[in-house]
Amino acid sequence: MTDPLYELYYWPGIQGRGEFVRLSLEEAGARYIDVVRQPEKEGGGVKAMMKLMQDARPVQPFAPPFLKFGELVIAQTANILLFLAPRLHLVPDDEASRLLANQVQLTLSDFVLEAHDVHHPIASSLYYEDQKTESLRRAPLFLEERIPKFLGYFERTIANNSSGSGVHLLGAGLTYVDLSMFQVMSGLTYAFPRAMARLAPKIPHLEALVEHVAKRPRIAAYLASSRRIPFNKQGIFRHYAELDAEPA
Amino acid sequence: MTDPLYELYYWPGIQGRGEFVRLSLEEAGARYIDVVRQPEKEGGGVKAMMKLMQDARPVQPFAPPFLKFGELVIAQTANILLFLAPRLHLVPDDEASRLLANQVQLTLSDFVLEAHDVHHPIASSLYYEDQKTESLRRAPLFLEERIPKFLGYFERTIANNSSGSGVHLLGAGLTYVDLSMFQVMSGLTYAFPRAMARLAPKIPHLEALVEHVAKRPRIAAYLASSRRIPFNKQGIFRHYAELDAEPA
Repeated sequence: MTDPLYELYYWPGIQGRGEFVRLSLEEAGARYIDVVRQPEKEGGGVKAMMKLMQDARPVQPFAPPFLKFGELVIAQTANILLFLAPRLHLVPDDEASRLLANQVQLTLSDFVLEAHDVHHPIASSLYYEDQKTESLRRAPLFLEERIPKFLGYFERTIANNSSGSGVHLLGAGLTYVDLSMFQVMSGLTYAFPRAMARLAPKIPHLEALVEHVAKRPRIAAYLASSRRIPFNKQGIFRHYAELDAEPA
Repeated sequence: MTDPLYELYYWPGIQGRGEFVRLSLEEAGARYIDVVRQPEKEGGGVKAMMKLMQDARPVQPFAPPFLKFGELVIAQTANILLFLAPRLHLVPDDEASRLLANQVQLTLSDFVLEAHDVHHPIASSLYYEDQKTESLRRAPLFLEERIPKFLGYFERTIANNSSGSGVHLLGAGLTYVDLSMFQVMSGLTYAFPRAMARLAPKIPHLEALVEHVAKRPRIAAYLASSRRIPFNKQGIFRHYAELDAEPA
């Protein structure tokens, strides 16, 4: 029997929210196509994505990423992972574990949106340069209030997990939310290296989680491959030195 | 056999994100306690909420709302509804329907956060008055770009739903996402009455959905009761006339 085929649709050129899905697919060694990154003549490209967004029934995606699996087209990152994780064995089987994993994933989603809005506090339709004044006001509050609050919460979640060896958010083994947490830590470290260096001593469990995930053989191979798009200034996590200033 | 008892924890005095949970519980006629609104001496009040947030295991909620059901404490609005809806018969039984409902609910959550950030573009820790300059810049973009984009999407979703009589987002009958959509429409109409009046001719299905939901007997009774907290300037949807100006 052939492995099921997952088709991921997401903007090319950025990790973005698609990366949370990619990490789970890669860790599981799943058979998948990153459709938009395939040549247009082979059914890839942004056009194919826009067409499926239009044509999907019964419900269109509001925005990428979305996943096609057979006839099913599902959107919203946390929802895609809710669907995928049991199939990829990246979450325990019981309902309570799945709900708690989804809860943590949604909390990560909230955090990711706040991180994005540091460089886009006024509108996603405007360039950063056109809302830089507001970004410069938002950034220190994000660094001094929100990052410590969110990362303190995730640090505590690992510490409270009596069965997780200090490197897992939930339960005894790896789940998809560990992979998502790795991605958020990586993104924050790229975008705000100075703030993250200041915070590092307070989040030993998160540092250990990052190290653990990065060393998993399939993740290590993925990160070293051309499938991993580098962080850049079009993505969610962006490094602008002026937004990562030392506190006054 | 006694009906199961659901305990909802949320900030008192505002509808906020708790209202999405309340509407589903009310429509289903479920047995529930709005814990924080009970007297402290009966185990209510904000203190009880803060204590459970600390004590909840294996995973603490990051923020209200959260729901206690037996030993399970689950947070994140969409996640609570994912858990509740099958039990309250507010979503069809099949996996695809549940995923699509969750997808729509998460898209509503994104929209709600954007609506909130209109009056809080810089930080949730600052008063509106201290970020009014930035709000005045964000509001017209929200009204002219984001509301039409989101509501256009939901309008299309109803129109594309061939089995929904023009008043349901998904399938042939009421689901929890219809109730959530009602809440978002109500909130927007409270906060931005002028913008919503301009848009009304373009969203007949959404207008019909609102009317349909408001007339459902249990919802009508709830809306007329003291359990329904009025919209106000502490909630997510806030009416500041200066943020609802006519376009230039």
